[in-house]
Amino acid sequence: MSFAPTSSSSEQPSKKQKKSDGEFFPNVPKIEYKGEDSKDPLSYRFYNPEEEIMGKKMKDWLRFSVCYWHTFRGKGADPFGFPTMKRHYDDESDSMENAKRRADAAFELFTKLGVEYYTFHDRDIAPEGKTLEESNKNLDEMVDYLMELQKKTGVKLLWGTQNLFSNPRYMNGAFTNPDAHVLAYACSQVKKVLDINHKLGGENLVFWGGREGYQSILNTDIKRECDHMATVFKMALKYKQENNMTAQFLIEPKPREPTKHQYDYDAQTTIAFLHTYGLEKDFKLNIEPNHTTLAGHDFEHDCIISSKYGMLGSIDANTGDPLLGWDTDQFPSDPKKAALVMGAVIDQGGLGSGGLNFDCKVRRESTDDVDLFIGHVGAMDTYARALRIAAKIREEGTLPGMIKERYSSFDSGFGKKVEEGTATLEDCEKYIQENGEPEQRSGKQELYEMILNHYV
Amino acid sequence: MSFAPTSSSSEQPSKKQKKSDGEFFPNVPKIEYKGEDSKDPLSYRFYNPEEEIMGKKMKDWLRFSVCYWHTFRGKGADPFGFPTMKRHYDDESDSMENAKRRADAAFELFTKLGVEYYTFHDRDIAPEGKTLEESNKNLDEMVDYLMELQKKTGVKLLWGTQNLFSNPRYMNGAFTNPDAHVLAYACSQVKKVLDINHKLGGENLVFWGGREGYQSILNTDIKRECDHMATVFKMALKYKQENNMTAQFLIEPKPREPTKHQYDYDAQTTIAFLHTYGLEKDFKLNIEPNHTTLAGHDFEHDCIISSKYGMLGSIDANTGDPLLGWDTDQFPSDPKKAALVMGAVIDQGGLGSGGLNFDCKVRRESTDDVDLFIGHVGAMDTYARALRIAAKIREEGTLPGMIKERYSSFDSGFGKKVEEGTATLEDCEKYIQENGEPEQRSGKQELYEMILNHYV
Amino acid sequence: MSFAPTSSSSEQPSKKQKKSDGEFFPNVPKIEYKGEDSKDPLSYRFYNPEEEIMGKKMKDWLRFSVCYWHTFRGKGADPFGFPTMKRHYDDESDSMENAKRRADAAFELFTKLGVEYYTFHDRDIAPEGKTLEESNKNLDEMVDYLMELQKKTGVKLLWGTQNLFSNPRYMNGAFTNPDAHVLAYACSQVKKVLDINHKLGGENLVFWGGREGYQSILNTDIKRECDHMATVFKMALKYKQENNMTAQFLIEPKPREPTKHQYDYDAQTTIAFLHTYGLEKDFKLNIEPNHTTLAGHDFEHDCIISSKYGMLGSIDANTGDPLLGWDTDQFPSDPKKAALVMGAVIDQGGLGSGGLNFDCKVRRESTDDVDLFIGHVGAMDTYARALRIAAKIREEGTLPGMIKERYSSFDSGFGKKVEEGTATLEDCEKYIQENGEPEQRSGKQELYEMILNHYV
Amino acid sequence: MSFAPTSSSSEQPSKKQKKSDGEFFPNVPKIEYKGEDSKDPLSYRFYNPEEEIMGKKMKDWLRFSVCYWHTFRGKGADPFGFPTMKRHYDDESDSMENAKRRADAAFELFTKLGVEYYTFHDRDIAPEGKTLEESNKNLDEMVDYLMELQKKTGVKLLWGTQNLFSNPRYMNGAFTNPDAHVLAYACSQVKKVLDINHKLGGENLVFWGGREGYQSILNTDIKRECDHMATVFKMALKYKQENNMTAQFLIEPKPREPTKHQYDYDAQTTIAFLHTYGLEKDFKLNIEPNHTTLAGHDFEHDCIISSKYGMLGSIDANTGDPLLGWDTDQFPSDPKKAALVMGAVIDQGGLGSGGLNFDCKVRRESTDDVDLFIGHVGAMDTYARALRIAAKIREEGTLPGMIKERYSSFDSGFGKKVEEGTATLEDCEKYIQENGEPEQRSGKQELYEMILNHYV
Repeated sequence: MSFAPTSSSSEQPSKKQKKSDGEFFPNVPKIEYKGEDSKDPLSYRFYNPEEEIMGKKMKDWLRFSVCYWHTFRGKGADPFGFPTMKRHYDDESDSMENAKRRADAAFELFTKLGVEYYTFHDRDIAPEGKTLEESNKNLDEMVDYLMELQKKTGVKLLWGTQNLFSNPRYMNGAFTNPDAHVLAYACSQVKKVLDINHKLGGENLVFWGGREGYQSILNTDIKRECDHMATVFKMALKYKQENNMTAQFLIEPKPREPTKHQYDYDAQTTIAFLHTYGLEKDFKLNIEPNHTTLAGHDFEHDCIISSKYGMLGSIDANTGDPLLGWDTDQFPSDPKKAALVMGAVIDQGGLGSGGLNFDCKVRRESTDDVDLFIGHVGAMDTYARALRIAAKIREEGTLPGMIKERYSSFDSGFGKKVEEGTATLEDCEKYIQENGEPEQRSGKQELYEMILNHYV
Repeated sequence: MSFAPTSSSSEQPSKKQKKSDGEFFPNVPKIEYKGEDSKDPLSYRFYNPEEEIMGKKMKDWLRFSVCYWHTFRGKGADPFGFPTMKRHYDDESDSMENAKRRADAAFELFTKLGVEYYTFHDRDIAPEGKTLEESNKNLDEMVDYLMELQKKTGVKLLWGTQNLFSNPRYMNGAFTNPDAHVLAYACSQVKKVLDINHKLGGENLVFWGGREGYQSILNTDIKRECDHMATVFKMALKYKQENNMTAQFLIEPKPREPTKHQYDYDAQTTIAFLHTYGLEKDFKLNIEPNHTTLAGHDFEHDCIISSKYGMLGSIDANTGDPLLGWDTDQFPSDPKKAALVMGAVIDQGGLGSGGLNFDCKVRRESTDDVDLFIGHVGAMDTYARALRIAAKIREEGTLPGMIKERYSSFDSGFGKKVEEGTATLEDCEKYIQENGEPEQRSGKQELYEMILNHYV
Repeated sequence: MSFAPTSSSSEQPSKKQKKSDGEFFPNVPKIEYKGEDSKDPLSYRFYNPEEEIMGKKMKDWLRFSVCYWHTFRGKGADPFGFPTMKRHYDDESDSMENAKRRADAAFELFTKLGVEYYTFHDRDIAPEGKTLEESNKNLDEMVDYLMELQKKTGVKLLWGTQNLFSNPRYMNGAFTNPDAHVLAYACSQVKKVLDINHKLGGENLVFWGGREGYQSILNTDIKRECDHMATVFKMALKYKQENNMTAQFLIEPKPREPTKHQYDYDAQTTIAFLHTYGLEKDFKLNIEPNHTTLAGHDFEHDCIISSKYGMLGSIDANTGDPLLGWDTDQFPSDPKKAALVMGAVIDQGGLGSGGLNFDCKVRRESTDDVDLFIGHVGAMDTYARALRIAAKIREEGTLPGMIKERYSSFDSGFGKKVEEGTATLEDCEKYIQENGEPEQRSGKQELYEMILNHYV
Repeated sequence: MSFAPTSSSSEQPSKKQKKSDGEFFPNVPKIEYKGEDSKDPLSYRFYNPEEEIMGKKMKDWLRFSVCYWHTFRGKGADPFGFPTMKRHYDDESDSMENAKRRADAAFELFTKLGVEYYTFHDRDIAPEGKTLEESNKNLDEMVDYLMELQKKTGVKLLWGTQNLFSNPRYMNGAFTNPDAHVLAYACSQVKKVLDINHKLGGENLVFWGGREGYQSILNTDIKRECDHMATVFKMALKYKQENNMTAQFLIEPKPREPTKHQYDYDAQTTIAFLHTYGLEKDFKLNIEPNHTTLAGHDFEHDCIISSKYGMLGSIDANTGDPLLGWDTDQFPSDPKKAALVMGAVIDQGGLGSGGLNFDCKVRRESTDDVDLFIGHVGAMDTYARALRIAAKIREEGTLPGMIKERYSSFDSGFGKKVEEGTATLEDCEKYIQENGEPEQRSGKQELYEMILNHYV
């Protein structure tokens, strides 16, 4: 018996040369569902895309998506080290030819994994030019190329977004830069991404404000910066409406990194921002659990809270390390935590136009090509297993029933009056005068935890 | 030369007996301003109450307030140890006589410190009875007693609040309890506190939701709980309006402790809640820096952000320890951090009906009576020094001028159009087509830090 | 189908009165192993005490132990609230009669759970008197009583320890108190605990320095304090040897809480202390995962590192919450994390005289008597499941084999020379001159995580 | 009045071209001491190098050192963005000519600042070649060049170190790599650095194990890795002795980053390692406050604890941000915290062969050349002010006297017997039988904090 961990030696040949038939990952087959007992790391034990669960296909609950940046542009650099990963299909040049070859490899990976969506930043797919015009021209050429690949494979664009954090011009912020000139540049990028996202059928469009925040409050006018950010969002909305675009706008919260404090700190901070500027109807959130834990919340918290308030649009389905104070963007491997997220997704009837986007990178030390597949397969199976767990909990009804019972005093009588908003403080006092001290009711957390473990 | 640290032996006599003239702290004189060089720990080096700074007396900028709970009810218990502090004026009984003697001692301390405000929870000032009626009767008797003390000394009530976290009945929450019966009890307490706060001239009324949150998301319906919390706030508003009360309602955010996750996590989470339920015009925030750092923000962050959005009502002027994951409620001793807070206060023209309330406790090991005074004197001087720093920065104008200059591109031309909200994405693109790449501008954080150090 | 969560109403009768036949938990049967599919929360799904795994009975690998303090003295108080738990067998008096009734209830719980060990602090089992003599007399009486219960039930003492943190006299430390008088008191307690632990057959004796550290470095001479602590350990060793005692001495590391910084910060800090003072042969460590995570390490880290260096003596088998900055002492419910701990235990051939001691408390809101059982059953099953996982991993050999292969270059040739300590820098340089750049080898973390998930 | 913050426009000319007289920073004069009231950011307010404090010149207490890597090789890249800093003296090529021009600029900065020491990694000063031989040849050429610059300017080498973390070959560790081949490469670098450090008169030699740790405990044999690390240290010691080298060996602890867990976690973990492998006499520590806070300790903690145990060799005098979970390497600006560090330095009579090395980088947004100077000037003044504070505290003796008094019970009688190690548990018990309960003594933390504030 063996897990047959595709050895680095066995794949060495593929490192040297793209095979003549145009295959980039010749050692990796189409990944198939082989059931729970499979020991083949290049198979799914839980993800069976066409299987129906609670009236929907697994693939439609999960709507998996691969990130272009981590999987096709990330090379393992970290603040203390140079890139570690060489890909035979990437000569590391800024040529259009190289960009296209990467796209070919990407669509091979999407297809072999059986993932139907992908996501990108503008600068992931096409090299930035010396001027905005040149950058846009590069984009146009690549968009045409991606359109072809989408048609050929059936893979779709979950969302596009603008990279407003890598270029040094954005070091002091993009929409919140103290210099209006930089804001103008950022908005020009937004305009172009709106256009190409629309052209490629992107179902959403994400705003991640990686440098929208401050490094030092000493040199920062936070109110003026937030005002500008809101103004830009309004410009983008206007452009979307005038051009009959339909992509759902999403904001992705993150508390810090790269800046010390980011304005879109977490789900509720972002909701406060949207309400303050009257934008709450036009945006939803793209929640990343790794960002959620960096903000001091549990993995599942921001997914659940934004879902309950109708604001959960999509999920960047990665994980972090609770002991590390930076974004590690790891492939998730904890089915119990993922089950809490999938529970929220089931409870809101699915992710709508959103998806589970693997904003994950293989570890810097995972340098084999096949590791790209293993990372995704493990993560997809984690979420597929999570879906099965969350569905079973709902189908058997034990935990939901216990919760319903716990709040049942609000279903009738005085409690119902409170729930309907018609009780007064005087009513409350009268109720106590008549009924005295409430009975003690155990919260029974240990029992809930035990029952959850039953399903995992 | 000596700091004359009132030794524990020298104060021993006062521990045994209240002196016949009714003085509780006979070894402590009225604390006077003696100037920066004073080495008397029972004097102010920076706090000169009547001195004018930027057109206002120091005492009116600072509006210091002493907490009844920490200073007169706290006895040094911690999760691993029993109380350490014996006070000769407190026989630790639940008698009304004891409650009054504590009040006498409290007003002596307020007066000797020269602090004009105090704050309390209902259960701090009067013992909880066996029934709500008995508790309310105790409160009524103490409120009359406190009214007399207020009149005699001129000390005023900054705010009252209801303790909805100590009694076991609130273990699963008060406004957010799964049991409507408990909610009714909590609301009955709120009604009474509204009444007595009004009678005592309380200028604000604080809601701190110490158990409004969850210990485990597994057994919790967070949406239903938040809905109930909003409903209670509406009941309280209605009661306030119907009874012509004027106290400013304040919510005090805290991320966790005692519960794992509290709904009023931080300033912006609370603002999101208020907007979601249409309460944003009727509430402001009472910000505690120790809670702010527990939420992952800098000491000054929540004060500044809530001030900028018109939501800073009052400040619980304590400090925490960034390495400790719990609320330490220490007396503040860092003038630089306090200066950032006072800068926000100056910029909004003062705290209005709010104040700087010392939600601070002497360390469990600081068991001498005189430590109660030393803690407050040190904290008051920290904030008085901070006020002087923040005012000087504004008067000299260097840092504010540098910030203004930094954003000056938004004061005219294209930037002004953005600021006014009339620019479009097309305008932005045109601006870049005409102007190309922006120039690089250093953020100069080190220079800002160096200049700030000049003032500290 | 139902989890039959013993309802609070059904157990109400037992709250009122101890039944005439002397049973304290009449609604709780002897907990039996019923297999993985059991939905009875009062049964074991994984813990089958007599079942053999890797040549040893489950109960001998696991050596479960119940804590007297949490389960029989904890009542749900927290820094913001009063006790929530009333136990019908505890009248909350300090009488010896009450102490004995608690002991009866405790041994009923131990027996019904089928746990063979328990642990206590001196002050848990007998009330502290007004003088040391009185306290010791109370202890003597209770020790006789416990001896009888041990004989009757076969339950054994895993370890005793001295409570040197609750009494106000220890507020500034016990062995590290600036006052030699307090140190003398602490040592007197240690002497007595050595005696009674020996009498009761305690297999270990634990030192937890809850107040051995500092709150402020400003008033602390850390070197002098650590010197004193080492001196006390030497006194205790001398007394142990002179009296032919055999209990294994254990130090329990914790980074902070109640003090800001504790000298026994974590496993390696404690090992540094032991080496510095020449104590490394006479002490092992009692590792608590909740303390480990508070120190910034993974749950399993201190168990593994101390095991690898022969210093793992026993385990306080609880869990914390990585987002909460204080010791929550929760019952563990994550089999994957527990499996990493059990892997270390298997690799060192068992825990020797140590055990898995549930230093865990039911949540403050879990107020039903039955919750005491549910907490333990869930935790025991978590570790029993973990043992099965860790054993299977070792039996199948996949992960261990992959690790062995990963380091195989040190098994022969140049690597072996390094491992044997005979290589020089010159040898290394020569090796590179001859062999050039090493080949890249993927760390394959995602594959390891995927395979681990296979076993969970 | 103005702080004259050298504007970016005014320095633009210097960006274009090195002036013909060979000056790289023509707008920056030699930095002079101008006294506390100086508002010139390019002057010292507190650092007066030749001034005597407590019998030693300021420069000899402080022994400032500039880091080659941050100041001359860092360009502002971060995990989310490209480099932001262009230096006119650095064409960003890997040529030897460029390396020499950088060295010229560096020595101009050292000289203008009046800093007498610098530090480097091997790869900072000379480009890595295609082979070890080529790298070593490049090093040799640069070492000759630096020798000339040292002679010309009088600037000395505080320490050199080997970069064993940037090159992809070290991704899985250097001394702890699972592959002996990589270990051999790392050791070859160590050998060369020992040689060049000796040649340049480096007074110390630092080992920082940036990749000596693990990313995942699942694929790691931590004991075997630590054994190998100890073996390498022994090889290095042997080489040092055989070649009559005198540099003090230093290990620099860091808890994590880049790896998840580093073996040299903090001061005490490293001391445990040294003792375990019998290396404690041959190594001291190089403590970095930013690493200390990342390990969960106060800024000053590791400096003080290692100093008390004779292990403080040198200090990387930077600061971090307690809210950020990564190494920010900021220039220090808090004189109070720095004063606690300088207090430890004074108490051990100075840093010996060590120094205060500014392992600090200007913020990514601080892109003007002059910011390099402002960062250092601010930091040097912070530590100079700290030295003055710490010295005054010792000269006036108030705080030291209070501490001495606090422990005075150990200076005679029973306490002295404990201190001398001759007391027994029986003596302790007898002492309590005779003396009963100790008196309570306040820890007076608030008073200590107030007095410290007097000096800041």
